[in-house]
Amino acid sequence: MRKIIEKEFALNYLNKYGSQMTVGNGYLGVRGALEEEYPEQVRGMYVAGIYNRPSGSMSSELVNLPDVTRFQVTLDGEVFSMQAGKVHTYERFLDMDTGELVRKITWESSAGKKYQLNFHRFVSKEVKHVIAAKVEITPLSDNMKVKVKTGIDAQQTNFGTQQLAESSLRIFDEELMVGEYETIESKQRITVATKVNEKGIFTAKNRQLMTEVEQEIAVNQVFTLEKLSVVKTSLDEADAEFPKASYAELKAASETVWADFWEHAGVRVKSTNTFDQFALDFACYHLEIMTPKEDSRCSVGAKGLTGEGYKGHVFWDTEIFIMPFFLYNQPEIAKQLLQYRYLHLKEAKEKAVKNGYNGALYPWESAFSGEEETPEFAAINIRTGTRQKVASAISEHHLVADIAYAVCEYEAATGDAQFMADCGAELLLETAEFWISRATNRNGRLEILDVIGPDEYTEHIDNNTYTNYMAHYNVKKALEWNKDNKAFAAQAEKFLENLYLPVENEAGLIPQDDTFLQKDWINLDKYKAAQGTQGILLDYSRQEVNELQILKQADLVMLFYLFPKMFAPEIVKKNLDYYEKRTIHDSSLSKAIHAIVENQAGNRAQAYQFFQEACLIDLGSEPHSSDDGLHAASLGAIWLAVVFGFAGIDTSGELLEIAPNLPDAWQAVAFEFAWKGETISVEIAPNTLQLSKSTKSVLELVIYGEKQQLTDTLTINLEQKDVSL
Amino acid sequence: MRKIIEKEFALNYLNKYGSQMTVGNGYLGVRGALEEEYPEQVRGMYVAGIYNRPSGSMSSELVNLPDVTRFQVTLDGEVFSMQAGKVHTYERFLDMDTGELVRKITWESSAGKKYQLNFHRFVSKEVKHVIAAKVEITPLSDNMKVKVKTGIDAQQTNFGTQQLAESSLRIFDEELMVGEYETIESKQRITVATKVNEKGIFTAKNRQLMTEVEQEIAVNQVFTLEKLSVVKTSLDEADAEFPKASYAELKAASETVWADFWEHAGVRVKSTNTFDQFALDFACYHLEIMTPKEDSRCSVGAKGLTGEGYKGHVFWDTEIFIMPFFLYNQPEIAKQLLQYRYLHLKEAKEKAVKNGYNGALYPWESAFSGEEETPEFAAINIRTGTRQKVASAISEHHLVADIAYAVCEYEAATGDAQFMADCGAELLLETAEFWISRATNRNGRLEILDVIGPDEYTEHIDNNTYTNYMAHYNVKKALEWNKDNKAFAAQAEKFLENLYLPVENEAGLIPQDDTFLQKDWINLDKYKAAQGTQGILLDYSRQEVNELQILKQADLVMLFYLFPKMFAPEIVKKNLDYYEKRTIHDSSLSKAIHAIVENQAGNRAQAYQFFQEACLIDLGSEPHSSDDGLHAASLGAIWLAVVFGFAGIDTSGELLEIAPNLPDAWQAVAFEFAWKGETISVEIAPNTLQLSKSTKSVLELVIYGEKQQLTDTLTINLEQKDVSL
Repeated sequence: MRKIIEKEFALNYLNKYGSQMTVGNGYLGVRGALEEEYPEQVRGMYVAGIYNRPSGSMSSELVNLPDVTRFQVTLDGEVFSMQAGKVHTYERFLDMDTGELVRKITWESSAGKKYQLNFHRFVSKEVKHVIAAKVEITPLSDNMKVKVKTGIDAQQTNFGTQQLAESSLRIFDEELMVGEYETIESKQRITVATKVNEKGIFTAKNRQLMTEVEQEIAVNQVFTLEKLSVVKTSLDEADAEFPKASYAELKAASETVWADFWEHAGVRVKSTNTFDQFALDFACYHLEIMTPKEDSRCSVGAKGLTGEGYKGHVFWDTEIFIMPFFLYNQPEIAKQLLQYRYLHLKEAKEKAVKNGYNGALYPWESAFSGEEETPEFAAINIRTGTRQKVASAISEHHLVADIAYAVCEYEAATGDAQFMADCGAELLLETAEFWISRATNRNGRLEILDVIGPDEYTEHIDNNTYTNYMAHYNVKKALEWNKDNKAFAAQAEKFLENLYLPVENEAGLIPQDDTFLQKDWINLDKYKAAQGTQGILLDYSRQEVNELQILKQADLVMLFYLFPKMFAPEIVKKNLDYYEKRTIHDSSLSKAIHAIVENQAGNRAQAYQFFQEACLIDLGSEPHSSDDGLHAASLGAIWLAVVFGFAGIDTSGELLEIAPNLPDAWQAVAFEFAWKGETISVEIAPNTLQLSKSTKSVLELVIYGEKQQLTDTLTINLEQKDVSL
Repeated sequence: MRKIIEKEFALNYLNKYGSQMTVGNGYLGVRGALEEEYPEQVRGMYVAGIYNRPSGSMSSELVNLPDVTRFQVTLDGEVFSMQAGKVHTYERFLDMDTGELVRKITWESSAGKKYQLNFHRFVSKEVKHVIAAKVEITPLSDNMKVKVKTGIDAQQTNFGTQQLAESSLRIFDEELMVGEYETIESKQRITVATKVNEKGIFTAKNRQLMTEVEQEIAVNQVFTLEKLSVVKTSLDEADAEFPKASYAELKAASETVWADFWEHAGVRVKSTNTFDQFALDFACYHLEIMTPKEDSRCSVGAKGLTGEGYKGHVFWDTEIFIMPFFLYNQPEIAKQLLQYRYLHLKEAKEKAVKNGYNGALYPWESAFSGEEETPEFAAINIRTGTRQKVASAISEHHLVADIAYAVCEYEAATGDAQFMADCGAELLLETAEFWISRATNRNGRLEILDVIGPDEYTEHIDNNTYTNYMAHYNVKKALEWNKDNKAFAAQAEKFLENLYLPVENEAGLIPQDDTFLQKDWINLDKYKAAQGTQGILLDYSRQEVNELQILKQADLVMLFYLFPKMFAPEIVKKNLDYYEKRTIHDSSLSKAIHAIVENQAGNRAQAYQFFQEACLIDLGSEPHSSDDGLHAASLGAIWLAVVFGFAGIDTSGELLEIAPNLPDAWQAVAFEFAWKGETISVEIAPNTLQLSKSTKSVLELVIYGEKQQLTDTLTINLEQKDVSL
């Protein structure tokens, strides 16, 4: 019953639903483009790790692969399009329980003939290479002549940027079409094989290898065409076999794997707003299909495998926003995401050297090679007509500490000593070495100058509080894990002692950086009302925005979320209030984190409102919000808001802590939580909190501030608790 | 009154009309794609000489440049598309008199609102860089909110093959959008500048630089948007200025140049079938806009600048089928086309050396560099599933002699001694040297082995009659122009003496090659009925076709056309009859040449039928015959059929000859004919043939076999003539 539903066809929402209705399995992502063509429709298939750097570009792009989803359907001579004729009934849904995308249309052609058209599609969760599709067409008013043309279409580009050269086209046994391609610069080889279960006429022209099936079908009889496709790349070690099973058989096998996923990774919410459960299911479904499962050479792009936004690059989003969902559900996958960083320690160290630092300076954006991939230019400046340079590659360094934070989070949750010995301690050491070299001694105080914090509307600032605290944490944890390295220990201790950590002023305000509190304030109501659109940049240049108290997202709030015990509650409250007023929430990373910190601060209603708004980032009514793909970090943050916000889990202490504090609209929440090799089932009901696990070992934890012991089941009566802070 | 008219909108004909309704000027070609997007619609803009060799490919492609023709129109929230809503009236025409493409639609949106939309577009014939467009929208039923988005769209590719890297995007004065691009391999620079005459909001994303204009317009008021664009490339020496004039002013200036063209280059036919005049106008219009006017670095591609078929490559089509239109109208342009070959003598000599020959072996297909550009593979083989090698680059050598033939034709028509001294004699010499080295001595007889003649269904044959005769002519003419070159003269004389020139057998049949007459014959009715589609290759492999008496076009007929005096009339008749029965006419070069030779042979009705069928190659009802562009050579041949066929001009003797022999349906023909620096006006009326020129010099010519003298005007009464052979 988990369904993303499109009730009516609207051209304007084509690419938003195209992103939402992506089917995939972490290896492969196939956008929910309609089978037939429409103007502006972006068709897309992506394989994790398959990037290419186009000629003349400085950054790699997630490659839009040759398409197998398109079907050109001609019914009695008329090309099927919902723009033409009349759509009598329309229904499209992605069944997240099974991973199948279904569309059913009753259509009347311009000639007045009626047809029932059903389209089905899924990517196998059992065999990661397989895409299956099925088309069923029934003539309702007369006999029909149906023509269906489909195959492998390598005319696909990334918005006009070609990534692939065609190496060979073959047809085997007058049945199986096989296209082989190679990415132009990165030299990855892609093989796409496809076949349909009816005889057709083959053509190979203009980068398309096609078959056209033509049949005559009596009224009320069903024409069915099944198409199976297999995608394989040079990143795959094993060979991919072409499936012998039918659509239905493949689907049944895939469904079983999906059922297992939902049983363990799903979060159940009982809310008076049923949308909450849907938004959570949507988040979990997409987190699952965006994340590679068995290949540490790949991480998660900012849009997962749903679109070409941010060119498929990997940001801090992965470690801070996406990894936790896996860490507390499938910790092996979290480990693999960290291994991706470890794999590219070499490139990070090279980037540090190039920039005059020690240790590891991870690229702000990365892809397959582990090199810096941040584009040189961003949007056009309407005043000068020129494009604006992106400073993140040079100055947005907090990512380094974010990775270290994720290493510690992983270690805390799993106690994986092997990982720490193999990778973790070294990652901490190298990232810490970076910070030590990054700091500047100013009159005996160590300062970190000229950075960008998470708030990207404030550039080139000194002593960004978020960055300094994170750097401090990074070096502190590195020291814990590298005590025997005397040379490092000496440097680290000096760094920790002398690094400037901004604290609250007399008014109780922690400055975001050295100059922020001195800047002018403007009324942001207009921009907050259009949040997420970066509308401020249409009225002000980046330079002007930089000189005002305008936040894209609030650094301090982020810091409060990551270190829930570090600041006194009244300081959190005061600064939350101050900075939120100055925050447009133009970053999709903002809202859900605010929900968590508002909940911590006891503002439950406000927290819930932020949560609901966060859910609308990809699911709201704005038609083009997700054209380039879904906001992967935001989806991770929705899950964080439930587990670390409303369910009140806190992993920052020695023991696991839990102190649920649900919104008024919620009656219950239940989820599983992996901790120290155990899986804890958490069930929060109106009056009880029940924790259970399948082993008998004793787990100490803190519930609403009191130490408790969990063996198999522990039930706490909440009626006696004061659950507001 | 010269108009290409589309009476109703039909998706199926989109790309055929897109080719037919190309606007251009020889420098620039802009396909007649509709302003709004449709599935499968191919939008295209091409500049002569701008090719790029994509990564992994062996051949260059005519580059599909960033688009300026697209307008996304949103009317009261609904995206305008003729697939949606209802089209009440529709009219589209390309006015060949003025070069303007016009579309007028009365459209009712899905919401039931009515609008009048008029679209106008032309490429200036005065300033070759300029493209002008105008959109007029009138709300007919209510006030309207109109949004128009347009700009420079560099998402254009050649069917998924990207040719351009984006170098820079700029907006000047919040008005002028400028995109700079570079072809990836050939490193040609392209600048596209555009602006609209209303204020809009600019965006630059995904290779699109756009402005969006939004206005509210009262019912029955007209919203007008003019868009001017300028295209310039690194092949241009002079700078291109952005025009200050309006659409109307630019159009008026361009029209004047068009009027001059039609006055001199137009052919007037009085026929009971008005389609004949239209087809001729269509041919002349397109010949004019496909041919570069002032740059010998560029020649004419097989589809002109109307599409991407044959990748924009230059074949023998140019010299044999297209050049004559210019030679006898604007001889300077014919000279320039020959200079293109002379410019690439070096590459032709290199190709000869690479293949073990002397002299100049011109590439079967060429582009900007003058190197061989023939693709390695053609269509897929349905039996083996593999693609089939193209043998033309290795064996289709007659092109060498075709170029030499065109040099002689040019010299005969112009007497241009300077050209012969500068280029012509050397071209003849080098091409002749090739043939001398190409021949093989077999028992004292020189033979030319393993070639392909114009009939490409017969490969790897020995002593192709067309090739041998053409080679003989080539060497003979080279000898005439290089008598002082003793070494060459000795070789040439030996070659001329010993080269095997096939003659008729006892049955009067001249063999097409050594083995053709021994091959089996099959009934071709089925394939002749579907001529032009190469349907034979769906039933037979190329190998099988090669072993049967199946012609794509008839080599002998081609030879009869080029040398009208060489064979006795009864031999022509017999062989015409024999070979035509075995010719599918799958080549678009076939029909019009048959028309000429049938007319020579006295089969007037048959000739006229071939002529009419030739006119249908691009203008017939088959919806996809011209999707990839028009058949440039076929358009040239339509003109040839009139001038060298029905009007009976013969330039193969010492004197110009003329012996008109019109189809029954024709009452009159009139055209100008440039000869030896004079322009002769030819007017053929029912009973008179009138020739006139503006000078008083005496020109000797042969009319119906009788020597005559033309000073200013010469009128021959045809009633006394027996005009059938």
